[in-house]
Amino acid sequence: MPKGFLASGLYCGIKKSKKPDLALFYSAIPAKSACLFTANKLPAAPLLLNKIYLKKTNFVQAIIVNSGNANCFTGFTGIKDAAETAISVADELDIKAESVLVNSTGIIGKRLPKDLIKKAVPTLIKGLSSKGIHQAKKAILTTDTFAKEVTVKFNLGQKEVTICGIAKGAGMIAPNMATMLCFIFTDADITSTALKAALKKCTDKTFNCITIDGCMSTNDSVMMLANAAAGNALIEKGKAVDLFTQALNIVCLELAKMVVRDAEGGTKFIQIKVSTAKSEKEAKAAALAIANSNLFKTAVYGENPNFGRIAAAVGASGVAVKENSLKIKVSSLKKKDIFVDVSLGQGNAGTVVYTSDLTPEYVKINAEYN
Amino acid sequence: MPKGFLASGLYCGIKKSKKPDLALFYSAIPAKSACLFTANKLPAAPLLLNKIYLKKTNFVQAIIVNSGNANCFTGFTGIKDAAETAISVADELDIKAESVLVNSTGIIGKRLPKDLIKKAVPTLIKGLSSKGIHQAKKAILTTDTFAKEVTVKFNLGQKEVTICGIAKGAGMIAPNMATMLCFIFTDADITSTALKAALKKCTDKTFNCITIDGCMSTNDSVMMLANAAAGNALIEKGKAVDLFTQALNIVCLELAKMVVRDAEGGTKFIQIKVSTAKSEKEAKAAALAIANSNLFKTAVYGENPNFGRIAAAVGASGVAVKENSLKIKVSSLKKKDIFVDVSLGQGNAGTVVYTSDLTPEYVKINAEYN
Repeated sequence: MPKGFLASGLYCGIKKSKKPDLALFYSAIPAKSACLFTANKLPAAPLLLNKIYLKKTNFVQAIIVNSGNANCFTGFTGIKDAAETAISVADELDIKAESVLVNSTGIIGKRLPKDLIKKAVPTLIKGLSSKGIHQAKKAILTTDTFAKEVTVKFNLGQKEVTICGIAKGAGMIAPNMATMLCFIFTDADITSTALKAALKKCTDKTFNCITIDGCMSTNDSVMMLANAAAGNALIEKGKAVDLFTQALNIVCLELAKMVVRDAEGGTKFIQIKVSTAKSEKEAKAAALAIANSNLFKTAVYGENPNFGRIAAAVGASGVAVKENSLKIKVSSLKKKDIFVDVSLGQGNAGTVVYTSDLTPEYVKINAEYN
Repeated sequence: MPKGFLASGLYCGIKKSKKPDLALFYSAIPAKSACLFTANKLPAAPLLLNKIYLKKTNFVQAIIVNSGNANCFTGFTGIKDAAETAISVADELDIKAESVLVNSTGIIGKRLPKDLIKKAVPTLIKGLSSKGIHQAKKAILTTDTFAKEVTVKFNLGQKEVTICGIAKGAGMIAPNMATMLCFIFTDADITSTALKAALKKCTDKTFNCITIDGCMSTNDSVMMLANAAAGNALIEKGKAVDLFTQALNIVCLELAKMVVRDAEGGTKFIQIKVSTAKSEKEAKAAALAIANSNLFKTAVYGENPNFGRIAAAVGASGVAVKENSLKIKVSSLKKKDIFVDVSLGQGNAGTVVYTSDLTPEYVKINAEYN
């Protein structure tokens, strides 16, 4: 982990599988924060609480995350439960409640077992260490099959800066950050404005360019903390911002791709590149129409080349396109990594999105979940 | 069939299964037509041809339909092949080419085997009879498991009027008439304006309210012919139009429901009613968001009550909604027919859409198709 950050993870009793289900991240130095939340109009309780806290202060010291329960559609009780969680962490660490952000992921519509969480908080805090990230990154998982972590180090002047991100997927992933939790930590000294701009920019091109099943979740969030422990010259503009954004983009892109690689029931990793679109918006619309087409996704699963389904999805997306200028190239479907290149012949804009195939296993997982 | 209409169906050699794959509908009296086509921006060749023909004349005498090949993404050659099909029918019947509409459904991106069709046209025409509808309705099917026909009779003054419709599904069904072919015949005497208005109105509330996999096809069309053979007083306004529209709506709604009942791999028939929405548009957006949610559809397949997925889909649809005014009711998932009632608590508008569940069988069918 970057300098000044500690983490911890354990099993507190929420998951029936008895796998780790509670994680804590902590910075002794209050860290500047940048947070992006799901566009779902019915966000879960912890998101409502975090938004309230973030209005009070931009400085965050702790993030607590539970898996196994999303604390969503739990009404006012859910917000109270989330607040109690934050307060128990704050009390134990002797910090303000509003400097603790709360995250939940798992089943929707069931009350958060807050007592299990509160009881585990002292042990969780005792376990805090710079190596605790290894337990913590496991404790945020739901149907994920592997933990996702990316760390990038780079030099700014004489100082080494670290950006470390972890994420969880793996279903209900759709653009606008759908069901996914991502926590990014950096010891960089950076202005709040530059931090927020960099995260927004990177998220748009990474987490907002992945889709597994087109379903947008109620919970998910990308949160970034910067505690300035690296001692670098303050990043506020120019080349330093570019370098930081570039490094952050690597972290976000690799995590986003890992989320897709770990798609529920997925057997393929599909990159869809749309070029020569009229605008970037149209490129993204066309790419996502393909990525979310069940017919395209089942064809890839069946290793059944069927360019007609790609073209049909493009046509259905409503973007400017003509049959005689449309070009479609698909790499061999026999491999695990599939590359789809679509050229619309309408302009100069382009984009890349990532998705997985649709498989009987996906149906099985989601028919039985709960 | 309504008075004055004949039909015919046979196997001409396109389908490997050797099931019927060519159908013809004919009215000796030139019939007024109303046609609605897919909103897909890359429509198939026969649709392009039909649009040209319908600009020349509103009177149609024949509709030829082949299954097994969609004649889509076949470029200029595809349009020529469709035109040759129309001409061969027109020549044999001694009518104008532009009074023949052409429809194709099946695999996309492969050249139409027009010679097989042209060779079969004389036999097809010899087979025309009022009972030929039974063969014809089978010949338009692709992955459908049953033929779909609805006939309604009603009196206008002293005269009996008949409306008979047939349709095919069964995958790639999404609002805006996606992959579906529907042919409706009536012996009513009705003005062209009233006919078109009635078909548009009924389609919006029926065929445009069904979705199986959210995929919008390139081919599909609703075509209606009215040949005035019933001898009724011309329908042009008032109660006669209402009665006609009401009867037509029954035909369209029942056919639309049959298409959903025959959804690829479907084991459930799901009715989603959204009420107290801000506007009809928002009601439809919310209902379709639920209907197209893979997570909702797999939960229904698994008979796994999970209202959170319904709420998450509503939230993702972007319509006006608040957690504390949202009400969700779901009937027992153990039955074949499922009723979902969602009340948004935002206004007075509502809608009903129909869909099916998402099953491993759906994935299998579409992974292997081709």
